[in-house]
Amino acid sequence: MTDRALREVAVVGVGLLGGSVGLAVKAADERVRVVGVGRRESSLAKALEAGAADEVTLDTAAAVGRADLVVLATPLGAYARHLMAMKPALRRGTCVTDVGSTKAMVVRLAKEILGTRGPFVGAHPMAGGERRGVEFARADLFVGATCIITPTKTTPPGKVRRVERFWRMLGAVTVRMSPTAHDRAVARVSHLPHILAAIIVAGQRDEDLPLAGPGFLDTTRVASGDPAMWRDILLTNRRAVLAALDAADEQLMHLRDLLELGDGPALERYLARAKGRRDEMVSERLRRRE
Amino acid sequence: MTDRALREVAVVGVGLLGGSVGLAVKAADERVRVVGVGRRESSLAKALEAGAADEVTLDTAAAVGRADLVVLATPLGAYARHLMAMKPALRRGTCVTDVGSTKAMVVRLAKEILGTRGPFVGAHPMAGGERRGVEFARADLFVGATCIITPTKTTPPGKVRRVERFWRMLGAVTVRMSPTAHDRAVARVSHLPHILAAIIVAGQRDEDLPLAGPGFLDTTRVASGDPAMWRDILLTNRRAVLAALDAADEQLMHLRDLLELGDGPALERYLARAKGRRDEMVSERLRRRE
Repeated sequence: MTDRALREVAVVGVGLLGGSVGLAVKAADERVRVVGVGRRESSLAKALEAGAADEVTLDTAAAVGRADLVVLATPLGAYARHLMAMKPALRRGTCVTDVGSTKAMVVRLAKEILGTRGPFVGAHPMAGGERRGVEFARADLFVGATCIITPTKTTPPGKVRRVERFWRMLGAVTVRMSPTAHDRAVARVSHLPHILAAIIVAGQRDEDLPLAGPGFLDTTRVASGDPAMWRDILLTNRRAVLAALDAADEQLMHLRDLLELGDGPALERYLARAKGRRDEMVSERLRRRE
Repeated sequence: MTDRALREVAVVGVGLLGGSVGLAVKAADERVRVVGVGRRESSLAKALEAGAADEVTLDTAAAVGRADLVVLATPLGAYARHLMAMKPALRRGTCVTDVGSTKAMVVRLAKEILGTRGPFVGAHPMAGGERRGVEFARADLFVGATCIITPTKTTPPGKVRRVERFWRMLGAVTVRMSPTAHDRAVARVSHLPHILAAIIVAGQRDEDLPLAGPGFLDTTRVASGDPAMWRDILLTNRRAVLAALDAADEQLMHLRDLLELGDGPALERYLARAKGRRDEMVSERLRRRE
């Protein structure tokens, strides 16, 4: 599915996600021009070489001038700088979307900086991985992935649909949520697992590590994610993450009780419930990919 | 590396692990005869067809009579029955080893039932996965995997070396530990991650599940494991698992405090420590496989 009104996309930040946006745009419609913005000549050269952009620049303002759509794909900490840089250069009607992992603070920031210019329609594609850099970018990264779109009451509905069309063009399944509902949900499905994965690794004794099997490495894969990026995610979603941690702690205490009591049947029921839900999720994903 | 004194191996339980033992024995030395024992004709037929056994039987005693080595690869709950069945049929000097995930209770049980017959040398190969059945068995399942060997003070040293030689023949890297030290270590590196994975899935709200990304599925992969098997593992290692849960809860509360305080630098240091350790583990595994 292509979008005829889309002629040029600016991608600010050409790492794993931004690079994959560029590759996916070109794969969906070769005629759409992709301009990549980066902070280092070296990563821009890699983005060009990978085919993730037709043109690259260090200058955010210059990149967005002709764009019909801007995708902000830098770490959260760099959003304010890029939004300020792009504001005077944005054409009237150019939508700005992003790939950030938290939304309430981002949407508020974009509104403060951009005002009525470049309506900002927040997005969070649930794809990526623990690796960084355009060298890991893939044209099919978003295929079958859920992409949460977070409009507010004041976002023009036409612009929301436009951004949804864009993410669907890259293969994602879009879902609409308010920024706050998004943040609460991802605190539970993404930020909590990240913290527990970090705890599992950080709490080990060195002498036990050689005993860890493949299950350990899978369970803790996300803990290899970028610490500065995850610090920003957790801090910008503090309240919701704290609530998710408290709920997890209650579950932990519940399982602890079952184990202390030696309550085999209840323990098995708990594990069976977890297995059933996860197996169902996996089947659902396989169906979606078909 | 083959073992000339090894002519026949009996594998009791031909699921993922037992089937992989059979395949790996045949891959290492085609001349070694593998006899598979199972509870259902259907799984025995599958084991034969997969090449995981040269001969199959429903009768544990009949299977072990000529064996130089017996590998117990059933769920923990079936150990007592099979040990009692094999006792009168074991030749003097035949070693019995196993693949069970906890060791103190298993080693105690084997000693109680077998006495001086068939010295039991507990083993725990850190390999497998959440799938069950000989159809997922692989000849290379143990290649590069750590296999913990858990002799006691009374285990004849020659028998310990024999069992170590066997697991190395299948490609594993053997490590010796006491049954109790093993149980404490795996409570931390294996049973704790399993419980946290189950909590992550079980604690979710249905409406949030479509938002879960690939990281969620990896983090929770082990939660798709067999609930009855994991109930047995957790219950037979109760004290050590409770201690591991308490330690994890302390870490959780520590991270909760850092987040509550908004202490970015400490949060980043914690995440960086987890990332560093995991990345080191992954490099170490890659080196081992080379």
